[in-house]
Amino acid sequence: MFLQIEDFLSPDEVQAVSEIARQAKFIEGRRSNPHNTTKDNVIADPDDPIGQKAGQIALVALQRNEQVNNFAAPKRVAVPSLSRYGMGMKYGAHIDAALLRIGSQALRSDVSCTMFISNPADYQGGELLIHMGTELLRIKGNAGSAIFYPSTTVHEVVPVTSGERLVIITFIESHISDQLQRDLLYSLGEVRALEGLKMEWQNRTKLEYVIANLHRMWSK
Amino acid sequence: MFLQIEDFLSPDEVQAVSEIARQAKFIEGRRSNPHNTTKDNVIADPDDPIGQKAGQIALVALQRNEQVNNFAAPKRVAVPSLSRYGMGMKYGAHIDAALLRIGSQALRSDVSCTMFISNPADYQGGELLIHMGTELLRIKGNAGSAIFYPSTTVHEVVPVTSGERLVIITFIESHISDQLQRDLLYSLGEVRALEGLKMEWQNRTKLEYVIANLHRMWSK
Amino acid sequence: MFLQIEDFLSPDEVQAVSEIARQAKFIEGRRSNPHNTTKDNVIADPDDPIGQKAGQIALVALQRNEQVNNFAAPKRVAVPSLSRYGMGMKYGAHIDAALLRIGSQALRSDVSCTMFISNPADYQGGELLIHMGTELLRIKGNAGSAIFYPSTTVHEVVPVTSGERLVIITFIESHISDQLQRDLLYSLGEVRALEGLKMEWQNRTKLEYVIANLHRMWSK
Amino acid sequence: MFLQIEDFLSPDEVQAVSEIARQAKFIEGRRSNPHNTTKDNVIADPDDPIGQKAGQIALVALQRNEQVNNFAAPKRVAVPSLSRYGMGMKYGAHIDAALLRIGSQALRSDVSCTMFISNPADYQGGELLIHMGTELLRIKGNAGSAIFYPSTTVHEVVPVTSGERLVIITFIESHISDQLQRDLLYSLGEVRALEGLKMEWQNRTKLEYVIANLHRMWSK
Amino acid sequence: MFLQIEDFLSPDEVQAVSEIARQAKFIEGRRSNPHNTTKDNVIADPDDPIGQKAGQIALVALQRNEQVNNFAAPKRVAVPSLSRYGMGMKYGAHIDAALLRIGSQALRSDVSCTMFISNPADYQGGELLIHMGTELLRIKGNAGSAIFYPSTTVHEVVPVTSGERLVIITFIESHISDQLQRDLLYSLGEVRALEGLKMEWQNRTKLEYVIANLHRMWSK
Amino acid sequence: MFLQIEDFLSPDEVQAVSEIARQAKFIEGRRSNPHNTTKDNVIADPDDPIGQKAGQIALVALQRNEQVNNFAAPKRVAVPSLSRYGMGMKYGAHIDAALLRIGSQALRSDVSCTMFISNPADYQGGELLIHMGTELLRIKGNAGSAIFYPSTTVHEVVPVTSGERLVIITFIESHISDQLQRDLLYSLGEVRALEGLKMEWQNRTKLEYVIANLHRMWSK
Repeated sequence: MFLQIEDFLSPDEVQAVSEIARQAKFIEGRRSNPHNTTKDNVIADPDDPIGQKAGQIALVALQRNEQVNNFAAPKRVAVPSLSRYGMGMKYGAHIDAALLRIGSQALRSDVSCTMFISNPADYQGGELLIHMGTELLRIKGNAGSAIFYPSTTVHEVVPVTSGERLVIITFIESHISDQLQRDLLYSLGEVRALEGLKMEWQNRTKLEYVIANLHRMWSK
Repeated sequence: MFLQIEDFLSPDEVQAVSEIARQAKFIEGRRSNPHNTTKDNVIADPDDPIGQKAGQIALVALQRNEQVNNFAAPKRVAVPSLSRYGMGMKYGAHIDAALLRIGSQALRSDVSCTMFISNPADYQGGELLIHMGTELLRIKGNAGSAIFYPSTTVHEVVPVTSGERLVIITFIESHISDQLQRDLLYSLGEVRALEGLKMEWQNRTKLEYVIANLHRMWSK
Repeated sequence: MFLQIEDFLSPDEVQAVSEIARQAKFIEGRRSNPHNTTKDNVIADPDDPIGQKAGQIALVALQRNEQVNNFAAPKRVAVPSLSRYGMGMKYGAHIDAALLRIGSQALRSDVSCTMFISNPADYQGGELLIHMGTELLRIKGNAGSAIFYPSTTVHEVVPVTSGERLVIITFIESHISDQLQRDLLYSLGEVRALEGLKMEWQNRTKLEYVIANLHRMWSK
Repeated sequence: MFLQIEDFLSPDEVQAVSEIARQAKFIEGRRSNPHNTTKDNVIADPDDPIGQKAGQIALVALQRNEQVNNFAAPKRVAVPSLSRYGMGMKYGAHIDAALLRIGSQALRSDVSCTMFISNPADYQGGELLIHMGTELLRIKGNAGSAIFYPSTTVHEVVPVTSGERLVIITFIESHISDQLQRDLLYSLGEVRALEGLKMEWQNRTKLEYVIANLHRMWSK
Repeated sequence: MFLQIEDFLSPDEVQAVSEIARQAKFIEGRRSNPHNTTKDNVIADPDDPIGQKAGQIALVALQRNEQVNNFAAPKRVAVPSLSRYGMGMKYGAHIDAALLRIGSQALRSDVSCTMFISNPADYQGGELLIHMGTELLRIKGNAGSAIFYPSTTVHEVVPVTSGERLVIITFIESHISDQLQRDLLYSLGEVRALEGLKMEWQNRTKLEYVIANLHRMWSK
Repeated sequence: MFLQIEDFLSPDEVQAVSEIARQAKFIEGRRSNPHNTTKDNVIADPDDPIGQKAGQIALVALQRNEQVNNFAAPKRVAVPSLSRYGMGMKYGAHIDAALLRIGSQALRSDVSCTMFISNPADYQGGELLIHMGTELLRIKGNAGSAIFYPSTTVHEVVPVTSGERLVIITFIESHISDQLQRDLLYSLGEVRALEGLKMEWQNRTKLEYVIANLHRMWSK
């Protein structure tokens, strides 16, 4: 399932990240996926303290957002990465790596996230294209918005034909790895939030009973 | 989980089964579990047409009962068996067979059922005792009532010390084999039945979405 | 995953179904989902022999189509139903029932199918809208095309604002119930079909080994 | 499954906890479950060093108890909490939270535990009531005893009508999350402990083979 | 796991099958696996009534064999096929098809079986070679013996360099699809058979409890 | 599945470990499995710094070996142990413990490893015998080679009848606990490594899609 959130970053945060992008050192994006010859973008050098500030802004936004918490049930989050697609750049159809190394541990990517920094009017092309078999979802968010989508999908960034696309991307390991299970728990949580106070106490307890036990069954 | 239903059989049906029990041919109950030396009761001969009528009454009652349908999600039901425990008879602690032969097929026992024909005042002892580890559930229903309980439990019938205990027992193969999964779906179904019409349409659809997809995941 | 197939029905078959639709008896569609007050369409009476011919044409098309076979791994198919949405008709957001009764058995709906009979130019509105969380897929196929999509999704048919939308719908129970598992096997099958003959024999055997054993693991 | 252990705490430990309860600072119990308006008890302030000593006594008792180790296969244990139910206090039917925060980690509650400090003769009411569908288990242990039960159940503490009920409660995350799986391994372990030395070596090895591989399959 | 049974067929049955092989019509074996260019043997024509008699002898032997019943927990058995490998014939490394068509149904091959008709002294080569990664199991049974092995393995028949290898092969769909689960239940069944009568009744009941519930969990 | 690697340790490393064995302190091997009365070997004292060096050599060899990484998907590795079987020593049929304590954590043994230090010509007997039901795999590697095999198997070391058998053993917890799942991913990885560069980009992406998502499904 997909979750698009407008104003995920405040205008000030978007502004700050844009400023960081002007000062940070960028390197070849292919470094994180060297086998993919269709990857052609640049990313802020993870060792550059200036670029790291963009990641910190993104993490703060993730942690304060209750909707993301409900939707993704995050267990761990990868260090967010600032990416820039200039004229002609793209990232061909690919699948995100299942296990990312973080020191001596592995983070499983369950939910992928793109936070849009550029204004969509400021570049042509550059849409995030999600392959759903023969159907395609085409996503180009407003500056400050974020899209959360299953890491299990093949997706691509189509070539930028003018202007520049600036985004922050990251990956979430969820307590609930399976996409459908995660979505069912999210839906039940919404029923509880929106209808729970109107229910008979006994029925609400039944709903709580189901939610708690599905968490027990499915959490890893 | 346990479901006790009062008046599962009507007084007329109880009367009819009692009458059948007076006329039917009974044989050693151990026939259905020869290795269990603690089984000591008699059952109506499955080849005796008179005894078979008791089973038919029981099947009719099962099929018309919406609560059983919701609770057990029955896929197939074993031929019900009329059992009599006279003075001193009992059925020691045991686990019901997982797979019952029905012709060339196997029925998996998920839910066990005892329908009480005798009036509890008419016999001493004879309780159905469900072992829950060190805790015990002790069940002695009114004439016409039925108890549905997980076939996964060790249970016994304690010795009858006076009078006669007449029951019909049967086994249900459920679409949802796992006890907890079955109970979670039953609980969500109750929330829908009792609260669904009060909900916003959109939230009710979320609930339907969860119920239908849990059925898909868990049905065998 | 989604599979759209152009020319799933031949022009002659589309013509034949259109003709059947002119002669068949139609009844309220809500009959198949009485609780959904937002369902407002008509369906060919399943007891009318004329309407049944449309279903037979659809079944023939399903059985001859190798791509559907690979994509959906069909175990059983529900009787296809001819549906008509006239001016203003619609089918609000809903989830397809998980278990459909077929005589004494239950068919689990894993893959839903809509075959388009009307020419898209001949009606306004009437798109099939698949809810993917906050993203939506909007599908309006050419006459003779078919769309196969997961029965696990919430979806709707938006109101027809002019003309008439004629479709055949049906449901497939798959050998592989889980959507992602089914799609992984479909993808491996495509790798085998498109690359298998170029591989070293030993490597192709490895691929066959994986495909066969995933089928064993996941088939129900 | 349920495990009741007499003399889980020694008389001295019961005495010590009773003394702690007289000195410790107590706060509203609802703090740990603010949405449950039926929760009405007091708990020792987790930040009060005096109250913390009760938890330490409980942890020592848990770690030394081999039967608990076999029954619950503990992976982690929550900080035990001293709870007091005075006249009229109660905790309405509820389900224990599935995931408890411990610092930056989450502990999954699989097995719940109540250790009884008060003498049952010293208070009226206050039973722990476990809902098993329409059947109820009613538990009121001796001072020093403990009851271990599945966190998956709905349960309640009925109102205390006289005297005072003092208990320590805690939650265990098990290596084996599923209740039935955990119980099957416990049962096989008991067969090994009680019959293993009498078996032919080869048959005992078969039993070890099963136990070890079920642990591999089911441990999380 | 592997099960080799000596004298699975009686000398008379071996004799009868040998005689059938002399009279029956044989066709290219590749018919059942046309994509495998390394398959080079001949099989009795499934439409030839003479050849069919060999299959019937094999089915009778399977049904009477209690050890096979315990080991494989058969649900359905494919029609056995009489195969002949003359000089130079072989069947290269392959994986058995996961789903075999039987009329309108699919049989899942879980356990593969080879019954040896030829005397091993009467041919050179022709061993059944099971690939276990870099290790190999090499099997050449006595006339009348049978080997049962997991259909999940890659295996081959190495070229016959002199004489003739006559075998009957078939496939079993088990109630317990997973190989390790099936083997664990087989091992527990052996513990019960060999040690059960020596156990305390209560401990034997614990063992029965585990066996029955593993059957419930794992049977398909 | 089994993986035998020649030259897993270099001749210098074999030499170094042999030297360590001459100097290290050895203790009764039964210490690690006191209930197994058939265990009769000696192991380097885990508290002896000299013996510990053998373990470090083994760990270095494990970490540098890409084939082991692909085959076993190691998450954690137990401290390797140097074992010596003198004249008449043996280790009867047993199953490796499922959970090994490492400080406060438990390591699940999924893959067992034996590294051969002695030259096979220098001792009689002492083969590693893997029980595959009625079939047996008999393994006696060259000095410097290593065998990796499923910890789920019953296995033994047969008595040494002359000379001395020196080995290092260890256990790997894999990201993929189930043996068949682990082997399927290993096989797909080999297809990618050996055929991937020859494939159409789109088909290779399909293969990557399957591999990444199987990792997500199966990794623990």
